[in-house]
This record gives sequence, C-alpha cells and structure tokens, in this order.
Amino acid sequence: MAKEKVVLAYSGGLDTSVAIAWLNNKGYDVIACCIDVGEGKDLEAIKQKGFDVGAVESITIDAKEEFAQDYALIALQGHTYYENKYPLVSALSRPLIVSKLVAVAKHYGATAIAHGCTGKGNDQVRFEVGIHALAPDMKIEDPIRDWHWSREEEIQYAQDNNIPVPINKESPYSIDENLWGRANECGILEDPWESAPEDAYDRTLAIEDTPDEPETIEITFEKGVPTFLNGEYYTLAEMIMKLDKIAGKHGIGRIDHIENRLVGIKSREVYECPAATVLIKAHKDLEDLTSERGLAHFKPVIEQKLSEVIYNGLWFSPLMPALTAFLKESQKNVNGVVRIKLFKGNAICEGRKSENSLYDKNLATYTSADEFDQEAAAGFIKLWGLPSQVYAQVQAKNKQDSHKNTANDGVKQ
Amino acid sequence: MAKEKVVLAYSGGLDTSVAIAWLNNKGYDVIACCIDVGEGKDLEAIKQKGFDVGAVESITIDAKEEFAQDYALIALQGHTYYENKYPLVSALSRPLIVSKLVAVAKHYGATAIAHGCTGKGNDQVRFEVGIHALAPDMKIEDPIRDWHWSREEEIQYAQDNNIPVPINKESPYSIDENLWGRANECGILEDPWESAPEDAYDRTLAIEDTPDEPETIEITFEKGVPTFLNGEYYTLAEMIMKLDKIAGKHGIGRIDHIENRLVGIKSREVYECPAATVLIKAHKDLEDLTSERGLAHFKPVIEQKLSEVIYNGLWFSPLMPALTAFLKESQKNVNGVVRIKLFKGNAICEGRKSENSLYDKNLATYTSADEFDQEAAAGFIKLWGLPSQVYAQVQAKNKQDSHKNTANDGVKQ
Amino acid sequence: MAKEKVVLAYSGGLDTSVAIAWLNNKGYDVIACCIDVGEGKDLEAIKQKGFDVGAVESITIDAKEEFAQDYALIALQGHTYYENKYPLVSALSRPLIVSKLVAVAKHYGATAIAHGCTGKGNDQVRFEVGIHALAPDMKIEDPIRDWHWSREEEIQYAQDNNIPVPINKESPYSIDENLWGRANECGILEDPWESAPEDAYDRTLAIEDTPDEPETIEITFEKGVPTFLNGEYYTLAEMIMKLDKIAGKHGIGRIDHIENRLVGIKSREVYECPAATVLIKAHKDLEDLTSERGLAHFKPVIEQKLSEVIYNGLWFSPLMPALTAFLKESQKNVNGVVRIKLFKGNAICEGRKSENSLYDKNLATYTSADEFDQEAAAGFIKLWGLPSQVYAQVQAKNKQDSHKNTANDGVKQ
Amino acid sequence: MAKEKVVLAYSGGLDTSVAIAWLNNKGYDVIACCIDVGEGKDLEAIKQKGFDVGAVESITIDAKEEFAQDYALIALQGHTYYENKYPLVSALSRPLIVSKLVAVAKHYGATAIAHGCTGKGNDQVRFEVGIHALAPDMKIEDPIRDWHWSREEEIQYAQDNNIPVPINKESPYSIDENLWGRANECGILEDPWESAPEDAYDRTLAIEDTPDEPETIEITFEKGVPTFLNGEYYTLAEMIMKLDKIAGKHGIGRIDHIENRLVGIKSREVYECPAATVLIKAHKDLEDLTSERGLAHFKPVIEQKLSEVIYNGLWFSPLMPALTAFLKESQKNVNGVVRIKLFKGNAICEGRKSENSLYDKNLATYTSADEFDQEAAAGFIKLWGLPSQVYAQVQAKNKQDSHKNTANDGVKQ
Repeated sequence: MAKEKVVLAYSGGLDTSVAIAWLNNKGYDVIACCIDVGEGKDLEAIKQKGFDVGAVESITIDAKEEFAQDYALIALQGHTYYENKYPLVSALSRPLIVSKLVAVAKHYGATAIAHGCTGKGNDQVRFEVGIHALAPDMKIEDPIRDWHWSREEEIQYAQDNNIPVPINKESPYSIDENLWGRANECGILEDPWESAPEDAYDRTLAIEDTPDEPETIEITFEKGVPTFLNGEYYTLAEMIMKLDKIAGKHGIGRIDHIENRLVGIKSREVYECPAATVLIKAHKDLEDLTSERGLAHFKPVIEQKLSEVIYNGLWFSPLMPALTAFLKESQKNVNGVVRIKLFKGNAICEGRKSENSLYDKNLATYTSADEFDQEAAAGFIKLWGLPSQVYAQVQAKNKQDSHKNTANDGVKQ
Repeated sequence: MAKEKVVLAYSGGLDTSVAIAWLNNKGYDVIACCIDVGEGKDLEAIKQKGFDVGAVESITIDAKEEFAQDYALIALQGHTYYENKYPLVSALSRPLIVSKLVAVAKHYGATAIAHGCTGKGNDQVRFEVGIHALAPDMKIEDPIRDWHWSREEEIQYAQDNNIPVPINKESPYSIDENLWGRANECGILEDPWESAPEDAYDRTLAIEDTPDEPETIEITFEKGVPTFLNGEYYTLAEMIMKLDKIAGKHGIGRIDHIENRLVGIKSREVYECPAATVLIKAHKDLEDLTSERGLAHFKPVIEQKLSEVIYNGLWFSPLMPALTAFLKESQKNVNGVVRIKLFKGNAICEGRKSENSLYDKNLATYTSADEFDQEAAAGFIKLWGLPSQVYAQVQAKNKQDSHKNTANDGVKQ
Repeated sequence: MAKEKVVLAYSGGLDTSVAIAWLNNKGYDVIACCIDVGEGKDLEAIKQKGFDVGAVESITIDAKEEFAQDYALIALQGHTYYENKYPLVSALSRPLIVSKLVAVAKHYGATAIAHGCTGKGNDQVRFEVGIHALAPDMKIEDPIRDWHWSREEEIQYAQDNNIPVPINKESPYSIDENLWGRANECGILEDPWESAPEDAYDRTLAIEDTPDEPETIEITFEKGVPTFLNGEYYTLAEMIMKLDKIAGKHGIGRIDHIENRLVGIKSREVYECPAATVLIKAHKDLEDLTSERGLAHFKPVIEQKLSEVIYNGLWFSPLMPALTAFLKESQKNVNGVVRIKLFKGNAICEGRKSENSLYDKNLATYTSADEFDQEAAAGFIKLWGLPSQVYAQVQAKNKQDSHKNTANDGVKQ
Repeated sequence: MAKEKVVLAYSGGLDTSVAIAWLNNKGYDVIACCIDVGEGKDLEAIKQKGFDVGAVESITIDAKEEFAQDYALIALQGHTYYENKYPLVSALSRPLIVSKLVAVAKHYGATAIAHGCTGKGNDQVRFEVGIHALAPDMKIEDPIRDWHWSREEEIQYAQDNNIPVPINKESPYSIDENLWGRANECGILEDPWESAPEDAYDRTLAIEDTPDEPETIEITFEKGVPTFLNGEYYTLAEMIMKLDKIAGKHGIGRIDHIENRLVGIKSREVYECPAATVLIKAHKDLEDLTSERGLAHFKPVIEQKLSEVIYNGLWFSPLMPALTAFLKESQKNVNGVVRIKLFKGNAICEGRKSENSLYDKNLATYTSADEFDQEAAAGFIKLWGLPSQVYAQVQAKNKQDSHKNTANDGVKQ
C-alpha cells in the first residue's frame, strides 16, 4: 500500500531536517517545501538538502512578490502595529506559507501537513488554524511539539538518522525573518531588564555606526501603494528590499517589545523592520493630508482589529475580507509624495504633497487670504457645547435645590 | 451704577493687551488674569502690564504643579496622542485655565469671561465650551473673533489706546506652550511640502547639534506616576521640566503633524514635546511588562476616546470622570523602573523591571527551565480555530453541492 | 437678465408652499421638486399645487424602489439603531432626497437649493451637509429658519401671497415618514412623562386592537437581502410595504425614544417601524446562524458607526463607502429562511435554516452523536486563563512579600 | 496520612452526587458546597443529600442578595446583552460561585476544587479560569469531563456506589437558572428550525395565556439601582424576584438565541429573563433622559466589552475593575422614575421623569416657549460639514483637471 504523504514546511535547518527523519519513521513519505518570503535563503541548497535528508520530493517556491503584494501591503496600509508596537513580521508570512503548503498538499494528494513550530509560540496557532481554515480535514503533524526532546536528544536522533548537525557554535537566539522584518527572541533577551546586545541585530546599524549625514528620500504612493522611490519605479517587493537596506544603514526600525502572546504568556522580542517603519510612517503622513476626518478617525479601529486578527492567526477567517474591503476603500485618495529624512535612527517626514490634499491653505491660513468663516465658529461652539452646558445647568439647579431644602429644613425646626 | 466685570485670560502680549482696552471701551471693568502653566513667563511683569494697559485688577496664578498633577498626568497615563501623533499640548492647558478663570470670576462677581482666541482654531471651542460647562450662565467675550481687524488696524487701535506695541520684528509663527510641550503654526509651516525650518523649534536641538554620546536615564513609576529620575525624587512638574531639558538636548520630541481641527479644517502644526515623548514611551514600556493582556488590549480604546474628548474641548463633560475612573484603575500595578537611552533624537527603552512584572521567565524560556504546558497548546488551537474551521467545512460542502448540482444539470440535459 | 433658479424640496404642505412665495419674492425662479420615498402622497396633486402657488417648474419623482435598495437596505443589513433604539427613519431618506435635488439643480442650471427644515432639528444638517458634499459650491436657502415667523405671521403671509391655508384643525404633531417608518414629535409628546396617546400612531394598531390569533410568516434572505415572503417574491420596496401592513396590524414596531439630537438637545420622538422591526430582527437571527464568530463580534462596531454617520448627516462623506464595503462583504453568507411569529406587538423568531448555517448539531449536541473534542477544552482553558492566573500569582507573591516585610519589621523592633 | 480535601460545587442532582463518589474513589475527602443564587432550591434537603452520598462535610450558602448586588447589578447597569441578545444568566453566577468555593477551600484547607460542568460548554471555562484567578495554585477536578461515561455507565456507577437514581422520566433539557434568569438547551432545541415548545419555558407564560389587561408599574432608580417598585422599597434580590413573577405572568423575557460559545461552537439556547428584560429596558430609558450625549454614546463600548469579559469567564481579570469603575461613574445621575406597561409579552416604557433630566422642554419645543438659538445652527452646519465639503471640492477639481487633460490630449493628437 502506498504510504501517506505529508508536506513539511522546510527551512533547511536542523529542526525541520530532523523532522523529515521523524516523519519518515512515523511512516510518511515527506514532501519538503521551502517557501522564500525574503529571508535571503539559498533555495537550491535547501532543495538539495531536503532530498539528502530523506524527503521523497523537495520543492522551493519564491513567494517574495506575492508576500509583498498580498500580505505586507495590508500591514502597510493598515498600520498594523500589534500592541501599538510590533509591525507583524512572522504573523504576516504564516498565512502565505500555509496557503502554499495546502496547495502543494492538494497537488500531491498529501493527507497531512507538518510544521516545525514549538509548542509555546504563536506560530503553531497560525499554522494550524490557517491549515484548517483552508483544508478543514487535513491532518496536522507538529514534530517539535510532539517529540519532547532536549537539545542533546535531538542531536543524537539526528546522528542516528544521518542528518548533518551544524558544527559551529549555535546562536543563542531564535530568529524568524522575511521581507517585512526580522524577529529575534531567547538567550539574553529573556531578561527584560537587560539591554539587547548588538549581536541581536542584523538588518540595522547601531546609531553609533550610522552615517553622520542625513539622507533624504521621496516615496510616491498611488492608492496607498508605494510605487516610486526617488522617482524610480519598484515593484513592492523590490521597494521593501531597497528601503530595508537604506533605512537599516541609518539605524531605523529597531523595536524592543514585551508582548502578550496569544498563548497566554508575555515574551520579550526584538524586531528589526527598517522598511516597514519608514513606509508606514510615510503612508500615515500622506493619509493625514488626504484622508477626510471621519474616515481618518475611524480607520484606527479597523487597524487595531486587523492587527489583532493577523497576530492571532485568523487571516483566513471571514472577518478578514470584510476588514480589507474597508481598507481598500480607504486608500482611493492616498496619492502623493512624502519626503523623508533618514538620520541616526530617525525617519522624519518633512514634507508631503498630493493632488488629493485636503489641506486648504486658504482655510488654514492666518494671513489675509483667509476664507474661513469665523462667524460660523460661534454657532458651532454653541451647539457643540450645548449638551454639557445643559448638564451643568441641571447640576447647578439641583445643588441649589438641595441647599434650599437643607435651609428650609433648618428653618422648620 | 457699578460696571460689569469681565475676567480676561491675559498673556501680556499685544492681542490680549488690546483686548483690555477693547473691553474697557465696551463698558467693562477688566480683571486681567495670567495663569502660568509652564511657559516660563515673567509673571510679575505681566501683572504690572495688566494694570498699565487698563485692568482694574491684575492677577497671576502659578498653576504648574496643578497642571502637571491633574492634567498632564492624564495625558501621560492615557498615552493621549490625538490622531496617533499629537500629545495634546494646548488642549491640556485650556481646561485648567478655564477652571481658574471661572473661579476668579465667581470670586470677583464678574458676569463675563473673555479670551483671546481667534475664530478658526480649536482653542475658542475649548474655552467657551469649558466655561459654559462650569458656569452655564456666564457671558463670554471673544474680542479677537469680534473685532475683525487687520494687523494694521489692531496696531492703530493699540496706539490710540496707549497700548505699547512691540518694536522688534514679529515672529511669523503662532506659538502656544506649557510644561507638556510647545505648539507652533503659521508662516512657512502653512505649506505642508516645506520642511519646518530650524527657527520653528525652541525646546529641542536639531539632531545634527545633539551630543555624540548617548545618555542613559532611569525613570521610576509608582502607580503610573513618574516619581524618581535616576534615583532622585521630583514632583511631577519638576520631573517634566527636568526631562524636557535633558531630552530636548538630545533632539527628542519633535512632531510635524497635518491635523484635523475640530472646526473642520486641516492645519499643519509643529510640536516639541521632549518630556512627554520620553515619559509616555517609558510608561507604555512599563505597562507592557505589568498590565494583564485583557486590560492592555482594551486600554487603547479608552486612550483614543480620552484624546478625542480632550482635543475636542469636552474636558468638563460627564464622560471625562468615567474615562479617568477607568484610567486610574488601570494604573494600580504600573510600578517599576524603565531604563532609557537618549541619543540623537531617539528615546530607546532598553530595560524595564517591576515587582508587578507579569513576564515569567519560566513560562517564556526555551531553556530547560520551561514550565509552559505545551500539551495545552494543542487543545487551545483546536478550539481557537474551530469557528473558522467549521466555516471552511460548510463552504467546502456548499461548493461541492453546487458542483454536483451543476453536474447533475449537465447530465439531465 | 434671467433670474437665478432655486430647486425647492417641495412637500405640498403649507410651509413649503409659503416657501415658494418667499423664494419668488427673494427674486428666484422656483423649481418645486417632490420626491416620493413612500409617504403615500398624491404626487399629481402636489405637482399641480406647486405650479398653482408659483413655481416655474414642478417635478415629482417616485424614488421608492431606489430608497429601498440603496438606503433602507443598508439600515436593514447594518441593524442601524441610533442609540440602540431608533432605526433611522428621516435620516435615511435625506441623502436620497438631497441627491435628487442636486441632480435636478444641475439639470436645470439652478444656483441654489432650498429646503423646509426648521432651525433646531437634525434634518437641516443632513440637507445642507449633504448638498455641500455633492455640490460644494451650491447656494442653500432655508426659508423656515430665516423668516422667523410665528404661525400667525406665516398664515398672514400665505394669504397675502394667495397660498391656500388648510382649514381643518391642525395636527399638534410634526410628522415625517417614508417606507422605512414614521417619525412623530411635538404636542403632548414634549412631556416625556406623558404616555404617547393613540392618535400619535398611524401605521400600527394598539396591542389591545390586534388580532387574537398569531400570524406566522417566513422570510427568505439572499446575501442579506429579503427576497421572498411566504414563498412569494417581492422587490425590496414591495416587501417593506407588504410587511409594514402585516406587522402594523399586529401592533409591531412602536418606539418611544428620548434621543440626543446632533444639534445638542434631547428630544422625545415616537416612531413606528413595523417592517423595519421585523426585517432587522429576522436578519439578525439569520446572521446568528450563518456568521462566523469573529465577524459577528466585530460587525456591531461597524453598525454603531454606520448609524452615527447616517444620523449625523454624513452619508456622502468618504467614510460611508468604506463602511458599506465592509457591510457588503459581511452579507455573502446571509442566505436562508427565518420563521417569525407576529403576535400582540411581538415579532418572535421561532426557527431559522440556511445552507450556510454554521450551527453543527454534531458539535453542539449532548447526545451520543457528539463529535466535539472535550479533551481539547482542558488545554484551551489553561491558555485562555493563563494571563489572569499569572497576574494572580504575582499579586499573591507581592502580598506575601509585603506581609513578610511587615513581619520582619516587627521582629527587628 | 490525612486525605486531601476537595470542595465540590454541589447541586444535589445526579451528576454531582455521582461526582462525590468518584472523588471519594479518587482518594479525596469531599466537601459538598451548594450555593443558592436564586434557583429556588431546598437547601436543607441538598445539604442532607450531600452527607448521604458520601461527603465529609456539606455546606449551603444563601448568596441571593450578594448575587443581586454584586453581579446582577452590573448586568443591569451595563445592559450586558451578549451578542446583543443574551443577558448573561449562567455567566453571571459562575464568578460568585467560584469565589465561594475558593473561600470554603481556603477555610477547610482543601487542595482542590471540583465542578460538574461538561467539556463542551462555557461554564467549565468560567469555573476553571475563575478558580485560578483567585487561587492560582489550586488543583481542579472536572469529573464529568474526565469520566467519559454514557448515561447508562453513569447510572451503573451510581448504583454501584449507592447513589440514588431519580426514577421519573428525565427531562430532555439541560437547565441552569438563577435570580437573573433561566437558561435551557438540548433536546428538540438542538434543531434551530424547530420552534421551542412550551415545555421549554418555566418562568414565563405563553402570550396566549397572559392576562388581557395590561399592568402598569413604576420603577424608581437611585444612582442606577432600582429601589422602589410602585412606591414600595425592595432590596435588589427581592425586586428581581418580585418583577420576575409580575413580568413572567405577562409573557415577558423569552429569548431564543443561536449563540457563539467561547469554546468555538454555535449552540441554540432558550432563555427566560422576565425581570432582567424589564429592568434593563427601564434603566436604558432613564439613561436616555439623564445621561449626557457624550457619555451615552460611549457607554455602549464599555457595555459590549463587559458582556464579552463576563461571558468569556474573565470576571476576575484586572480589566473588570477598570470597566466597573467606568460603569459606576456613569450611574451618578441615573435617578428617577420610569413607568412601564406590561402587556402580552411587551414591556413598554411609557413615561420617565427625573430631577436629573437633561431633556429641556424650552430647548426642544416648537412652541413660542422656544429658547433654542436657531441662528447658531447655521454656523454649526457649516463647520460640521466642512471636511466633506472640502473633500468634494478637491474631488471635483481633480475630475475637472482629468477631463481637461483628456481633452488636451485629444487636441494634441
């Protein structure tokens, strides 16, 4: 009888390589599947390694542009900072990876999907909830959560199964990265009072090491999509990669966050998101110029929900298309150019212009060009303050009445 | 018959000095009242000037500490960034000033209160709505909005009424400041594409001019109130003033904002809030460590409403005490120390500790000290994803059914 | 020189008939425009009367179906109860009327639009804000707010200008109605302690007078649109009119509301919305069956905003299309049938079924068919409660520590 | 060695009686604890039965008044309808029961607490999360979820352990009730298309059987607490019980709800909440009269969160005291009397009055007593609509420009 097939989210690292052996030993034919969302991996080498360590099939998918267009763009336009701080690095790539794994599984007739997440992070939730939202009857294997091994036991198992074990000293950190940023945890970072050491960072220079000259860039947006950088067109993935280099060089986008995981614990994470930081800042600045007040004041409610839904692994739930329908509609007038100065860890919006600008100099000015109807203000104020004025009148009357009553009582006696 | 008395919010500047004459000419006895909320004014000189230009009484009130304790503290604990950007400078001082003006008016038996706001800003709303919320029957005079003068006409009127006119070249800017920050508009700033020039700033150094060495400080919070700076106790007003100097020197707290005014227009404002920026950042970081997830995730809803209510001049409406009751309750465990590195425009939280820390290393760690129940995760994920899984099942079934129906239809024909 | 033209929202009543004369006297050519949104007017008679009292052109537009499809449907799907009570009667028709007035004005080259709202209601805001959102440079005339007449003066003016004055005793009420409902205010209703008398109602029977037998109906929805009533197809306007009769006969849909007007005062309004009440109830019940939890729990946030935006006259602001984009997306699975019993003022949903039902008997049942994984619950509970458990542990430890410290202090002394 | 003690939430029914045997067999000394929250139980009999079936201690606690004052009151003032429909019956009593169990456990030195919830409902979450929020180190036993027995196996175990098994035919329903209402599920109710049969209800009459005469009552509130009914004082528990009888007789308070459980499934529940329905309606009506607009419009946000937190078993999380601090502050002016007509399933608020009424007849009236400043409206409208007007202007300009450009392009070619 043919063995059942499992599609494994394969990174080429020790854990998922051991997982191939473990899944083989469990009776599966393993299809290793490595999806590139911008970590800068050597896909060919990973593909080969997949075969080497026992996969019956080894696939690699370059999903960078898709990741940029369909995932990072929502984070950018939605300003999705989880807990007002973390711009959703891993949380953004998981649904894309899941959708690829499910497509591969369907293509190959696999009955299970496996991932290499630990049992205490958010990613296991994102993988498994995502898989079941796309393929509700798919089996899920989570080797790392299942095997309960110490580091030593894992290495022993690797050696027993001819999985090469890296010789170089292991990094103390646990890292995940993609186009949109880099997430780092563990090691010394587990003490929230300790400063994150320089070796915790990779995509940004320390402010001390950044250029002493500022760099000014101009980003053009069309319907909320960044299209031109300093007048030159880039696809979104290219734009992000380009900006990541530039902004990283100026030390922009380091984030040190004590965050509430979905699984109920607090963890300390160190993020680097140079491009994301600059792009969201520029986009917000342009929205400030082009979005009508009512829309501008309600959009953050959508933003907060978006970031929560994405963080919590619910990308494929029916709430998402409703939220993104709102988001898309909100971007129609977000056209224009933002000028940003990058300098010593700062991304400073210095100027913005747009044919959809709702800033009206003749209304705002204090010069003689003033067209604002100052008479109207008096009427506005009257009605705006009427509810609290009536409230005050009633409070005052009641206080008086109660004084009178007290006084009367006194008189009567 | 005795003249009616009016209490005027007096700044000592040309506008409100002319207003004294204008109110006198309208038949009032004017009580000039200058309230110091941290602009660094020479109160004695202003008091004398009030008399000089025609007030029957001239009063000054040092309200710095009260401003810090009862107003700025709410902005600090409430992270009240209007439109996620402006930390409420003028909006915060207006209610305090109003409450003082009303108290003075009641003390002197005045029948009216006058302020010097223009007819197109938010402050007129804050003054008038605030006054009527505290004294619903008080008359309000708004000379500037009423007199409709050009600059030249105003100067003529001043000269006609023996009001000294400053000789030095006028600043192109319109500035308001207090302990919590400095707001600047007008002049070149009216073009949102232009960079704010250096002379638009006063309390912060340009990054180019800041020290090349970082400065690391420690701020201690008790129930959300900053109490110690580098181990030394400060009252809140002192703390803010001290931090303003330190952080300003490192170029921290510049904000360039296209904002939606309550009166319906967009304006471009440049703010400097060095102390506010550092304090809110440190406070948020400590909350990240000490606030339970549910509270942490809902507090931003209160924060957004608080900033809107304050910005919109509704400080004295009955919604405020309800919001601040929530806020106060949320601060009970915000105790601890935050270590911040100030450097080149950046305030970087590098470490935080608290006896109320909810970060539990033994739950978060990936080392052998791990106490987290990874088995529980599998159950959690199942139920967490169940709604979208059931949804997917129903969608899949319907799709199948519809295919079947189509197929059948085909067969039938 | 040709006179300027004004388009008047014409009802055929005394106020707007006098307005024609008043506008004529002000130098306008008046185009009377009567838009039928379901008040059951005699359009021909109104058209003629428009000519009779001095309009140069008199137009009537039957907009019932458009009102149903493009306006009432949003209220239905959005469950837009303002202040959780008022299902937006007048607020819904104003934007449609405004859009027609603007279209007519553009067609005829009119430079102004006039309406007959008083100066203290919400409708003036809805008209004028709406007009300026569609035609920012259009002049607006508001005769009633401008002429400041007593009833007697108005009648005198009517007689002087040959406007027929109705002889029959005037109703004490001020009424507005359309397909979606009927709004009533004034007269005895101005005392909130008084019961609304029977003559305040028109479209509903008093419960005392309703049939003693219940009537059970079935409403079919397709993508959130009611399409069949008891198996018979109706256009939306027909459906509403049909249901209005049926539900009104059973005394359903009376609402007695003390409401906060946008213009700052509280007013007491009596509404009758038989069809709206039944339809929204049925629709909500079907959503309860077909909407996934995350979507179901967030949709009320959109609903509350929708009702606020519509009530506040901001239908044509850019926030609306974003909100309705969300709404539309949320309706994709709202398909099915709801069975409702109408009886003595009650609309009771007794059964609902749908091919998109997310109710899964095999998950919900307590019988042996149970497929729910009860083991998973234990894991879920552990992680769900972890944040408050950790919180409790820290609180307990701190309490203990503080006791210990107190004890130690005791010992030392 | 002494056995460990477990405190069991004991109802006197079969499940928890069998649980006593099961816990004994597991090696515990069982302390049976029955807490009366208004189900109308025979506490003495239950106490005796606890001893009879093997408890070493059997305790009963009358917590009705505490339940009313500290739990139901929050639901009443907070209008906490979960999913806008279910007024939180079981969800409200669980935290009180938990707090008693923990207190008893601490008193007796018990190391564990046991409850009789099944593994697929919300109550297991509420019990266990609540227990660990109050006693983070307490062991929890959940016999029903653990023993995996069919009905027959449970009865066999009961007989083997001398637990009396009720002879009468078992109800098909699963019922929980308390002062605030009665919840019913299972049996025929598991089919959402079936009407709930009459025997599913217990505390309300069918409309068909209700009196043909309406009954009008007056409820007095003081700071949001109902104190007098028809002029007679009642404690809150008495008030609820009294109203439950009266309103139930008129068929008020039946709710048929397809609801989203926290554990991820939809279930169909039938509730009866006569008193709750009347009290919340009356309270809302009085708030409509006495709450200032800003407070009134934001309170629903708090209400929705409150109902979610309570439903989700997070009563003892730190978010609750913050939410209730807001709630308490919001009730200061909710004083007055509401007149309600109870008739044929309807609770109709017909009149309301209050010394804190913010309804001002002289502002609202259309008679000559009018004090409203209609001039102010024009100014208000101008600024209120300014953002969407400016938006429209810019849109129009751009459209024109784009036409021009198109035209030009045409010309050029």
